[in-house]
Amino acid sequence: MIHKININTHTRVEFQEITGAVRDIVESSGVQSGVCYVFVPHTTAAVMINEHADPDVAEDIAAQLDLIAPRHNKYRHAEGNSPAHIKASLIGDSKVIFIEDGQLVLGTWQGIFFCEFDGPRQRSLMVKIVADK
Amino acid sequence: MIHKININTHTRVEFQEITGAVRDIVESSGVQSGVCYVFVPHTTAAVMINEHADPDVAEDIAAQLDLIAPRHNKYRHAEGNSPAHIKASLIGDSKVIFIEDGQLVLGTWQGIFFCEFDGPRQRSLMVKIVADK
Amino acid sequence: MIHKININTHTRVEFQEITGAVRDIVESSGVQSGVCYVFVPHTTAAVMINEHADPDVAEDIAAQLDLIAPRHNKYRHAEGNSPAHIKASLIGDSKVIFIEDGQLVLGTWQGIFFCEFDGPRQRSLMVKIVADK
Repeated sequence: MIHKININTHTRVEFQEITGAVRDIVESSGVQSGVCYVFVPHTTAAVMINEHADPDVAEDIAAQLDLIAPRHNKYRHAEGNSPAHIKASLIGDSKVIFIEDGQLVLGTWQGIFFCEFDGPRQRSLMVKIVADK
Repeated sequence: MIHKININTHTRVEFQEITGAVRDIVESSGVQSGVCYVFVPHTTAAVMINEHADPDVAEDIAAQLDLIAPRHNKYRHAEGNSPAHIKASLIGDSKVIFIEDGQLVLGTWQGIFFCEFDGPRQRSLMVKIVADK
Repeated sequence: MIHKININTHTRVEFQEITGAVRDIVESSGVQSGVCYVFVPHTTAAVMINEHADPDVAEDIAAQLDLIAPRHNKYRHAEGNSPAHIKASLIGDSKVIFIEDGQLVLGTWQGIFFCEFDGPRQRSLMVKIVADK
């Protein structure tokens, strides 16, 4: 069974923390031990695990990605959102997180972020939980 | 069981869409619900999920990666293909895709691409399907 | 069950090969066919699969990442390790590797590397093995 998280983004580039929403799905599943997969069904958005304590970290990552794939450049794709496609391909569309004792296993500083690179939009994220045998 | 897709690339950098080949393996497996893993056993190639409708998107991603890891630079590795190794490490060697109702679950614009960064070569891609219990 | 590999890093940026340690866990598990997941519970370190034959390749990747996320830049995060967070988000926190005939399935040139971007530190890496049914 695939669970869906609906996400509304409000600006062009936005890193929205979704750790709580993923945790809720894991806890509701009742799975004690297994693997949680997170997948973004979009081509101009991504999912990242990084620091959630200081929001400046996500800001710095977003700003550096703007330098890596600059907004105004000679791109072929006519829609004008090639930088968003490039950033999405660098950060990636899925994450794998372990489940133990009924909880997501994340490091102290780790949070899960939905990364919008071509907002604002209505987006979704898919979550699948597979229990150990 | 691991399925193998053989891929021939024809130029130095080439993004070849393999969605159909992966779909065929999923459908032949008869698995209705599960997870499909794709893995590239090479160090100068990668696998990416991004837009397949407009081929300009893959061209823009490839071109930007050429700026991120320029061909002529002071690299140590004597074989001259360090940019290919760098690009492969950024795009990544594996993907996780859900299976539901016997089909790969991909967003409308998403396609799976084998990314050649040091061609032309004979390459392969491994696919593993794990059914839900 | 989650296995833990303890890793000590000795410099700021260090790519430490851990293929042998992961292989040992796979072999001890007795699993003949399945999937091995590797996860880094840190936000300034990552895990990469790339060439292990010539150590210059990892050096070139590390050096290029220093150009992609330069050490001295206008970052917001006050701890001064934003480049490490950026690099970790680009390389990624997890890997999926197939197991067949009781062995990790890796290409000839592929090795698994723990990527330290903010060392020296005491780090850990988590490994989970899921057997096929």
